[in-house]
Amino acid sequence: MHRLYYSPGACSLAVHIVLEEVGVPYELELRSAANSEGTTTAEYLALNPKGRVPALTGVRGGAGGAPELLTEAVAIMLFLARSHPEAGLLPDDAAGEARCLEWLSWISVDLHGIGYGQLWRPHRFVSDEALYGAVQAKGRDNIRAGYDHIEKILSDGRDWAVPGQFTVVDAYLTVFWLWGRRIGLDMDAGWPVWQRLMTKVLDRPAVRRALAQEGLAS
Amino acid sequence: MHRLYYSPGACSLAVHIVLEEVGVPYELELRSAANSEGTTTAEYLALNPKGRVPALTGVRGGAGGAPELLTEAVAIMLFLARSHPEAGLLPDDAAGEARCLEWLSWISVDLHGIGYGQLWRPHRFVSDEALYGAVQAKGRDNIRAGYDHIEKILSDGRDWAVPGQFTVVDAYLTVFWLWGRRIGLDMDAGWPVWQRLMTKVLDRPAVRRALAQEGLAS
Ligand SMILES: N[C@@H](CCC(=O)N[C@@H](CS)C(=O)NCC(=O)O)C(=O)O
Ligand SMILES: N[C@@H](CCC(=O)N[C@@H](CS)C(=O)NCC(=O)O)C(=O)O
Repeated sequence: MHRLYYSPGACSLAVHIVLEEVGVPYELELRSAANSEGTTTAEYLALNPKGRVPALTGVRGGAGGAPELLTEAVAIMLFLARSHPEAGLLPDDAAGEARCLEWLSWISVDLHGIGYGQLWRPHRFVSDEALYGAVQAKGRDNIRAGYDHIEKILSDGRDWAVPGQFTVVDAYLTVFWLWGRRIGLDMDAGWPVWQRLMTKVLDRPAVRRALAQEGLAS
Repeated sequence: MHRLYYSPGACSLAVHIVLEEVGVPYELELRSAANSEGTTTAEYLALNPKGRVPALTGVRGGAGGAPELLTEAVAIMLFLARSHPEAGLLPDDAAGEARCLEWLSWISVDLHGIGYGQLWRPHRFVSDEALYGAVQAKGRDNIRAGYDHIEKILSDGRDWAVPGQFTVVDAYLTVFWLWGRRIGLDMDAGWPVWQRLMTKVLDRPAVRRALAQEGLAS
């Protein structure tokens, strides 16, 4: 059985949604990313030296033996979707899957690692605390530019992020849409096409269950 | 037939290596990332609005029709490896493939997007040119920390980055090892296990061909 190490509303939410969509039994274990007790305890670092969430145990075939821990949201989502093709969370051809990975990869680098990294973890970008504000301001610019890119791609009339079906990309986009609201962006006015997609996503039973389990309003 | 848009020695080299390993015919098209003429011409931006390399055309099933362009090094490598299983560039089970994607994803975010992004594109992180030096210094720290993480993973006696076979991860690692040398790091003294892996990788005929075609010494 899988165990997901998560923090409420963090990028681990995308994996949590995918687990609910897939419908297999799993356990949740809280490791808050908001305080240093959660992800940086000695016990958690022994399990996951990266000290981050998400992390998933129970991945058979993992190098290094038990507990067969897999990290990186993108890798975990792809793993779950590919291990459960019956859930239909990926197109079934290599090109369609590559389209999904193109989205996931770009989001994880430009929006998560860079944009939100600058805003929420400025110490990763400069050592001098006096410069944090400058890094954060540029992070906000990068986030808005990333959101504009998302809106543009979605604006060709497609039904889902990768046309034809709800995929892991829509799950991942949910995190960044909720984060936009959290940092005070007017998602409805600024990115109306994305907002319409999200109305459909947030209405899915699996998404509602994941949000409720993390104590989040949709 | 695929066409790869590349810049000599850039992250596109990893895709170039994968194309050579796979052994299908393809075309190369130069778009230098070193000067703004290469990746930011109006003609290239019309094809690839991201204005970056690598980009691969001829990906059947792409949304938006011709020229069916795929971006993001991680997505392109996975696509090529999965479309040509006979090349053996990925383990053949979902967990092994997830191990590869875990490496690729982490490298693309922490080492490429953040570390080298800070060093070579500080303008993405702060607006004020006077602060570029501070961002670059921290970028160097992040690169060294990332390299230490790579060395640690490789130090358990494994034969390749994902044990058992040469995979797309070894191709991707090659780029970052060459970049380490390019920025003046003593790769041999600092990260000897990685260095030993690279000796094997650089000896592969496909890797030698890709380097030679890009005018790079190994
Ligand atoms: N590249 C990783 C990044 C994971 C990550 O940064 N997770 C955040 C939560 S969204 C975290 O655990 N932060 C805690 C910390 O940085 O101490 C992934 O995509 O899984
Ligand atoms: N996330 C992208 C990043 C691509 C990227 O940044 N490529 C660099 C070369 S290594 C580039 O084209 N830079 C040109 C520029 O930023 O203008 C990927 O992994 O493919």
